[in-house]
Amino acid sequence: MSADIRWDHHREGRTAIPEVVFGPGKTVEHVVRLFSEGEGFRLATRLSEAQMVALKDLATVDLVSRTAVREPRPMRSQPPVGILTGGTGDIPVATEAKVVLESLGHPVKSFFDVGVAGIHRLHSVLPDVKECPVLIACAGMEGALPSVLAGLVDSPVIAVPTSIGAGISEGGTVAMHAMLASCAPGIAVVNIDNGFGAACVAIKILHRLVREA
Amino acid sequence: MSADIRWDHHREGRTAIPEVVFGPGKTVEHVVRLFSEGEGFRLATRLSEAQMVALKDLATVDLVSRTAVREPRPMRSQPPVGILTGGTGDIPVATEAKVVLESLGHPVKSFFDVGVAGIHRLHSVLPDVKECPVLIACAGMEGALPSVLAGLVDSPVIAVPTSIGAGISEGGTVAMHAMLASCAPGIAVVNIDNGFGAACVAIKILHRLVREA
Amino acid sequence: MSADIRWDHHREGRTAIPEVVFGPGKTVEHVVRLFSEGEGFRLATRLSEAQMVALKDLATVDLVSRTAVREPRPMRSQPPVGILTGGTGDIPVATEAKVVLESLGHPVKSFFDVGVAGIHRLHSVLPDVKECPVLIACAGMEGALPSVLAGLVDSPVIAVPTSIGAGISEGGTVAMHAMLASCAPGIAVVNIDNGFGAACVAIKILHRLVREA
Amino acid sequence: MSADIRWDHHREGRTAIPEVVFGPGKTVEHVVRLFSEGEGFRLATRLSEAQMVALKDLATVDLVSRTAVREPRPMRSQPPVGILTGGTGDIPVATEAKVVLESLGHPVKSFFDVGVAGIHRLHSVLPDVKECPVLIACAGMEGALPSVLAGLVDSPVIAVPTSIGAGISEGGTVAMHAMLASCAPGIAVVNIDNGFGAACVAIKILHRLVREA
Amino acid sequence: MSADIRWDHHREGRTAIPEVVFGPGKTVEHVVRLFSEGEGFRLATRLSEAQMVALKDLATVDLVSRTAVREPRPMRSQPPVGILTGGTGDIPVATEAKVVLESLGHPVKSFFDVGVAGIHRLHSVLPDVKECPVLIACAGMEGALPSVLAGLVDSPVIAVPTSIGAGISEGGTVAMHAMLASCAPGIAVVNIDNGFGAACVAIKILHRLVREA
Amino acid sequence: MSADIRWDHHREGRTAIPEVVFGPGKTVEHVVRLFSEGEGFRLATRLSEAQMVALKDLATVDLVSRTAVREPRPMRSQPPVGILTGGTGDIPVATEAKVVLESLGHPVKSFFDVGVAGIHRLHSVLPDVKECPVLIACAGMEGALPSVLAGLVDSPVIAVPTSIGAGISEGGTVAMHAMLASCAPGIAVVNIDNGFGAACVAIKILHRLVREA
Amino acid sequence: MSADIRWDHHREGRTAIPEVVFGPGKTVEHVVRLFSEGEGFRLATRLSEAQMVALKDLATVDLVSRTAVREPRPMRSQPPVGILTGGTGDIPVATEAKVVLESLGHPVKSFFDVGVAGIHRLHSVLPDVKECPVLIACAGMEGALPSVLAGLVDSPVIAVPTSIGAGISEGGTVAMHAMLASCAPGIAVVNIDNGFGAACVAIKILHRLVREA
Amino acid sequence: MSADIRWDHHREGRTAIPEVVFGPGKTVEHVVRLFSEGEGFRLATRLSEAQMVALKDLATVDLVSRTAVREPRPMRSQPPVGILTGGTGDIPVATEAKVVLESLGHPVKSFFDVGVAGIHRLHSVLPDVKECPVLIACAGMEGALPSVLAGLVDSPVIAVPTSIGAGISEGGTVAMHAMLASCAPGIAVVNIDNGFGAACVAIKILHRLVREA
Repeated sequence: MSADIRWDHHREGRTAIPEVVFGPGKTVEHVVRLFSEGEGFRLATRLSEAQMVALKDLATVDLVSRTAVREPRPMRSQPPVGILTGGTGDIPVATEAKVVLESLGHPVKSFFDVGVAGIHRLHSVLPDVKECPVLIACAGMEGALPSVLAGLVDSPVIAVPTSIGAGISEGGTVAMHAMLASCAPGIAVVNIDNGFGAACVAIKILHRLVREA
Repeated sequence: MSADIRWDHHREGRTAIPEVVFGPGKTVEHVVRLFSEGEGFRLATRLSEAQMVALKDLATVDLVSRTAVREPRPMRSQPPVGILTGGTGDIPVATEAKVVLESLGHPVKSFFDVGVAGIHRLHSVLPDVKECPVLIACAGMEGALPSVLAGLVDSPVIAVPTSIGAGISEGGTVAMHAMLASCAPGIAVVNIDNGFGAACVAIKILHRLVREA
Repeated sequence: MSADIRWDHHREGRTAIPEVVFGPGKTVEHVVRLFSEGEGFRLATRLSEAQMVALKDLATVDLVSRTAVREPRPMRSQPPVGILTGGTGDIPVATEAKVVLESLGHPVKSFFDVGVAGIHRLHSVLPDVKECPVLIACAGMEGALPSVLAGLVDSPVIAVPTSIGAGISEGGTVAMHAMLASCAPGIAVVNIDNGFGAACVAIKILHRLVREA
Repeated sequence: MSADIRWDHHREGRTAIPEVVFGPGKTVEHVVRLFSEGEGFRLATRLSEAQMVALKDLATVDLVSRTAVREPRPMRSQPPVGILTGGTGDIPVATEAKVVLESLGHPVKSFFDVGVAGIHRLHSVLPDVKECPVLIACAGMEGALPSVLAGLVDSPVIAVPTSIGAGISEGGTVAMHAMLASCAPGIAVVNIDNGFGAACVAIKILHRLVREA
Repeated sequence: MSADIRWDHHREGRTAIPEVVFGPGKTVEHVVRLFSEGEGFRLATRLSEAQMVALKDLATVDLVSRTAVREPRPMRSQPPVGILTGGTGDIPVATEAKVVLESLGHPVKSFFDVGVAGIHRLHSVLPDVKECPVLIACAGMEGALPSVLAGLVDSPVIAVPTSIGAGISEGGTVAMHAMLASCAPGIAVVNIDNGFGAACVAIKILHRLVREA
Repeated sequence: MSADIRWDHHREGRTAIPEVVFGPGKTVEHVVRLFSEGEGFRLATRLSEAQMVALKDLATVDLVSRTAVREPRPMRSQPPVGILTGGTGDIPVATEAKVVLESLGHPVKSFFDVGVAGIHRLHSVLPDVKECPVLIACAGMEGALPSVLAGLVDSPVIAVPTSIGAGISEGGTVAMHAMLASCAPGIAVVNIDNGFGAACVAIKILHRLVREA
Repeated sequence: MSADIRWDHHREGRTAIPEVVFGPGKTVEHVVRLFSEGEGFRLATRLSEAQMVALKDLATVDLVSRTAVREPRPMRSQPPVGILTGGTGDIPVATEAKVVLESLGHPVKSFFDVGVAGIHRLHSVLPDVKECPVLIACAGMEGALPSVLAGLVDSPVIAVPTSIGAGISEGGTVAMHAMLASCAPGIAVVNIDNGFGAACVAIKILHRLVREA
Repeated sequence: MSADIRWDHHREGRTAIPEVVFGPGKTVEHVVRLFSEGEGFRLATRLSEAQMVALKDLATVDLVSRTAVREPRPMRSQPPVGILTGGTGDIPVATEAKVVLESLGHPVKSFFDVGVAGIHRLHSVLPDVKECPVLIACAGMEGALPSVLAGLVDSPVIAVPTSIGAGISEGGTVAMHAMLASCAPGIAVVNIDNGFGAACVAIKILHRLVREA
């Protein structure tokens, strides 16, 4: 299949985000080859167990987020992106966003398990949250965290619905629709479990922030 | 059609809730007759403009909740049911619940426009909310209010999704599903815009509370 | 991940319901540690086979409801919560509700397999059902049991749709929507298969019943 | 458009049901012409106000069911089809079925407003219901009537979901899916509000019953 | 769990259909016990591999329809129920209907693989199809077979949508909705893959046919 | 708003289909101006009553299809596109396709009201249908016509679901999904009521047929 | 109802976005009072005809976007937010975003009618588009514009699905889901027709950009 | 089951497409027998691993598209059908279309991985794409490729939504609906992952092209 793939070498120049390896549907051999060839930054997401095992000598593999990173970019000196989760079940998705951001040199500060069923947990971290110029809020079930958060801060909130849930909320559609329907202005939503996509929005914001400065 | 109707005279004895007139699909004449015949308590909900005009000399008509009440029951001496709304758009539904409760003698305390986009509004009324043995929380859009509320109180929360919303949340299905999916335990949900149904659940709780005492 | 978890120690004081361990997404080690540390009441739900095996010396594990209980609260002297099921397939969900209630000291009386396809079964247990101040009705497929029940009793009915079904009703959405749409007033609904959630609503009702008495 | 219509003259011989005029999308003139031309039996359903006014000298117009009948067939001597409704709102749909059956000579017995919120109403008419060789049960909202009914009788139950409902059940999809999902065997379902379709199934059953006898 | 089960011994007398064992959710031991106890007719559907293996000495097990029958009723002398399928993939569902009917003494005639993509196949068996007083038509994908069939015959058509399909039709909802939406009158629909339910409707029709004769 | 519109003058050269005026959302003045300016071919679809009245001196307005044509292209000498409908309700959609094709010089032959509830109607026109190199089949309700048709002919079938239907099929989604799910190969589907889109596919086929010849 | 409204005076300080008047559900008198009281900035969206007429002497009313602005903030000197639309039907939504941004002092540059059916239109404005640090892309129907755009620029793309469409895409759900599903990274989505929400996300981004500078 | 299968020997003469073996639901033995009997062309699609292994000596098995071909037809001399994919994940579906076309003698030219996230990839192959008289465009996720393509070419575009996606787009429904909703005229859509169906439409177009020539 190799001849059929058109690697988009100029993507980062054009869009501020380099091409990234999406694990599903790729053979282990294919993924290994992509991390063996050439040099410099390489990032893979949504890796299978077998893909992670095969990459462990070629890259830094993170089992929670199912990612692999080769030659990450140097960390920049800038205020961190804040990443929040409603529960512990949302941590893999949040960690995918964290790995994408950090591998490309953007510092991150995590605030996990601060969901609305115990709203005091969010209040207790709010001063630190407010320091972050961009926020990523991951939640499953009823997906209420971004709505409460957006009413408390002046940073943009990128909402990531997660597939964590049961019954009607299993799979994440309820959380996603609730985030889109939020009564709190200033929320933008990405696809279910799309930590990668949320990180990309954050990177584009930060990239232009630097470019405009 | 009159001969076809089987009025359920024993419903209150059996279920603690008397039969109530549901406006839609009934002619003005039919509704007027039901309020002209017999005596004692009578309650109608979801009335049309024409039905409300026709009933105004026969009952206390409330334009906000589209209800009519004849000979309400005397008010009991008991702690009030708390009724909360996320926004002002939810007030008609909340008021339907209020009229049903008050007409059957159950005191109510309202906390309107305390939605999660400005969570301080809920915190400011919380002490009074906590005094209520049963809470009814009405919200449209993302429907997050009951989730935040249930994490703060030890009373049961009856959640009423409202049809208030736009785009994906128009009609109330998103709010309803989000309430069912809540990460906060102790929430029970009724149908969209069903202030009447929420009041009935509250009445059955209060009825047994008295019966068991 | 342990550092990321914010255990909500004050939840019971605030909401009448202590924090409960939700099995899915937790490692066996994590669950074991939560039952090894500290002392006093601990409850876990939705446990996997492996989690149940690992907990069997640390707690009372129930295979039907997939729950584990450590140091249950003493049983109170009060009328029982009635738990009904439409069929035998709904028993695991009903049992989850039962374990939650009993572990926190609330007596339960079960009425299983009394669904509407043989309505005489419900009639035969009705006198005992009527003694219960709160009812939990679990049903899958068309979910009609709570509708028939609510027309026969003066207690609140907490309806639990189950995922038992086939074809269009597989997964429980049809039962859930039918329960929300019920023509019988006084029904409040929780998420699909959410025996835990139904028990929490019942506990909050009973808690306030005691507090108000 | 007249030349484009291919009237199916042999439909009754082939299928036991003559071609019927479906009102929606037809001009008043078109409908009038169809009742002015030729002779013998003619039936129209789902008529608009204007169509009903225009037909009132050409046919027996029924305002409740929005039907018109010209030269009905003589009534047969056979046990009646039983038609039940859950509430009064279902009566228009039930009456459409009744008019179709009676206009083609099949006697009908009605049992209206016998829904499950007051199950004693169904028990009180049950002996008469059991005499009917075919039953048509119309219900909106949660659509539970056919499920309870089918567990009590040995006749086939044709279930007609109606669009009567509010919130999630508005439009009839919840009732239709609940009927298809019924735990009670021996139920067959037609489209929402399709009283005509239910009558056609009954006619085909009765037609073969006679043919086989 | 055994004490919780309320076997409905009078179901056949009341509804013409005896209680049947539904495999899913029952342990192998439970199913075996139900076929070991007592005597006379017993039928089980939707059996797992393990349940079928365990029953093979106690009943006639059919691998295609996943059913088991003990002591079937004697075959009656009456015209057969016609069972049609659109494709070969629908045969397991059709066979479930066939086993249910034959085990209760009702003769069946099968017309398999006569779907609308080659409509001549249906025309070629039509004379035999027309002899059947009741027809069961099973189809997946677009579910068009019952619509074409109902326009050609004067018997009632019980339509069984099957889960056979791909893409948008996988699972059978498209076929089910298309059957309910049919432009051909005289079709009644059961749940997806519900061969058992279709057979029950047919049995109730035939039972009353005999009773009325 | 005029300055904001970017008329795509080269669309026909690029895609074989000139830019067409879509009525909805445009003011009457805007539509009139588009038909007053310049010269040559102009086509508008989905016109409102007011738009049609305003255009009647500027173009040939067709009330059935709600279209207007200015300076149609000369008719070509080629075999006609066949346009079929299931019922008379589908004729407006079919006529939109017809007007688009004829206005651009492609002959059409219509076969209306040949739906599957009376399949003999389709058989009777089949020889003429087979002469057409491209077929457009419009149907609402269960949408079975293209499935039957595609099994009988060697031309490509462009299926147009229509919004004609009732209950579950109202709006056309059932018909659209059924057409996509068809068991008959060689069907391609366009959006609901999209006679224009079907005509465009036919035009592109015929355009290349000429170009390749 | 006035006493029930809790105006959130500190919202702008907390969230960078002042409270805005949402027209639907408010009486004309209520809206007029909100624009008559106090002084300084006031913005209303989604106004009815009557509300717009009543406000025309109190504010700058825009008929396309159905907004009213009183005392807009002075325009800042900063690069403009780029607002793109796929078609002309999306202009009202785009204009709502434009009015919100401009009224709060953020310059805007519009690129309307640059949808993917004629991709050259997007390429021709691309150099100007690339100058904008934040982009808002509005599209209905298949909603492809943000996907193509995000592959061409290094700014964040806020995607606004619009309700413009027909058949399956009417109402905007298809466009919204397609935007969430985009293969192009760096897209964040708001609710259907939510030009206001998109503007709020842009404002929060620009606000932090200034704060961090 | 063999006796139940009615092989449609005349299908190719009638519809230009021979009967094809659909793997799912068939035993390995059954599939092997179909490739062992008779002679001449035979094609199977959607084969399982076991079916492919069993056929490897009887036919040319393609692992990517899960197809098997026996005695393909000689390749014709005609311009190729163009097959495009948005990403590499769509290649199996595209290859199914390719195998069907080539096995029946129609040449194919592939343009894989030319999706809209990097639109320059499509522009770079456009001259070759324009030479193809029929185009098949396969895409998952947001499904935008056919919309962009149809605005650039004068050939008909057969759009194949694929199940490739994540979150809301998993399974392909979003891509399918987006393709049907396209703002670009001249697109016709087949079922999700239906490479076979797309090839059949192309074959019918090419067959008539030849027949008319």
